[in-house]
Amino acid sequence: MSTIKVHGATFSTATQRVLACLHEKELDYEFVPINMIGAGEHKKEPFISLNPFGQAPGFEDGDLKLFESRAITRYITHAYADKGTQLVSKDPKKMAIVAVGMEVEAHKYDSPAAKLNWELCMKPMMGLETDEAIVKEQEVQLAKVLDVYESRLAESKYLSGDTFTLADLHHLPTLEYLMKTRVSVIFDARPHVSAWKTDIMARPAWKKVLAMKNNN
Amino acid sequence: MSTIKVHGATFSTATQRVLACLHEKELDYEFVPINMIGAGEHKKEPFISLNPFGQAPGFEDGDLKLFESRAITRYITHAYADKGTQLVSKDPKKMAIVAVGMEVEAHKYDSPAAKLNWELCMKPMMGLETDEAIVKEQEVQLAKVLDVYESRLAESKYLSGDTFTLADLHHLPTLEYLMKTRVSVIFDARPHVSAWKTDIMARPAWKKVLAMKNNN
Repeated sequence: MSTIKVHGATFSTATQRVLACLHEKELDYEFVPINMIGAGEHKKEPFISLNPFGQAPGFEDGDLKLFESRAITRYITHAYADKGTQLVSKDPKKMAIVAVGMEVEAHKYDSPAAKLNWELCMKPMMGLETDEAIVKEQEVQLAKVLDVYESRLAESKYLSGDTFTLADLHHLPTLEYLMKTRVSVIFDARPHVSAWKTDIMARPAWKKVLAMKNNN
Repeated sequence: MSTIKVHGATFSTATQRVLACLHEKELDYEFVPINMIGAGEHKKEPFISLNPFGQAPGFEDGDLKLFESRAITRYITHAYADKGTQLVSKDPKKMAIVAVGMEVEAHKYDSPAAKLNWELCMKPMMGLETDEAIVKEQEVQLAKVLDVYESRLAESKYLSGDTFTLADLHHLPTLEYLMKTRVSVIFDARPHVSAWKTDIMARPAWKKVLAMKNNN
């Protein structure tokens, strides 16, 4: 009987990030759906006792309660180091390289990727109008980040070395959404970035997260 | 002879974050000043070989080269766990709570704090005009984050428990700048936040970073 519970929504990129990590680690968990768009349950009790900022996902492992997807994935990988895929390293120098990759995702990649996802995927889904000026501006920002990734990925198969780590995994949710938009050409124009995203999107753990989303 | 080198500028908040960590850990290091404002050295070789995004600081420890201030402080605290102040925990559950605090700083606090710092401190220093609309908007965002902090700090002395950790330390650079602006009232209106910031700003390690900045 698993002690792990994930409270979230399968369309939420932050929820998907945590689910992808749990599947890579081959851990059992209970998924507790939060009705965000219809009922705004993430802004009310009991959810906001789990995350005072009212954002999915919330996470429990026994009496430990966490929020912030990237803190949750770090916890999972360290607490369950012996299970499933090794997504981090116990060696401080190797771990530091993974940590740089994770910070770059969080502070450089995620901002344009999340804004493009909002404009090109979420807004149309909700019947709102895409702001073309924002799209153009964020495409330029994303391209700059992907230029750095292209150089990095010419040297190693993954962003933080020759194995798949959390630094790669954290990109999957926005990547999946953006590949269905015109932004995909920015990725495909860079051969190493293109090969990398094809490789990580094909991982069985990620396919399981997509199946959950599509069956919802 | 220390193997640690920090390449940066003492006015840079990200550089200060790394220096504060090194002083807490009582580690020797060599500081390599980068002439950012005058010469734009952070956008040129040799610095951009250290950080392809061209932002201070860059960091070396022997043959290990890192960038992104929060990845650097994590590396320092894990690689030099036995030195100076214990800023993280080896226990995965306790470390997870520290990680949540660090993610909240990076994803919730830093955005309004950095924008207010830019508008109210950096722009006036560079002879540029403050945008009042941005200041008002970001003050509202900051106040919301500090409301959550106030509840948290009513339960424990520091953001991630009863000891000072990286989750607190990462706030120091923007906190120090903002305390010299009208934004200080947003902190002082919340008694637990006010006591917390007074406590962490008085740490001897932080005073040493300020002395470096003021002697520059």
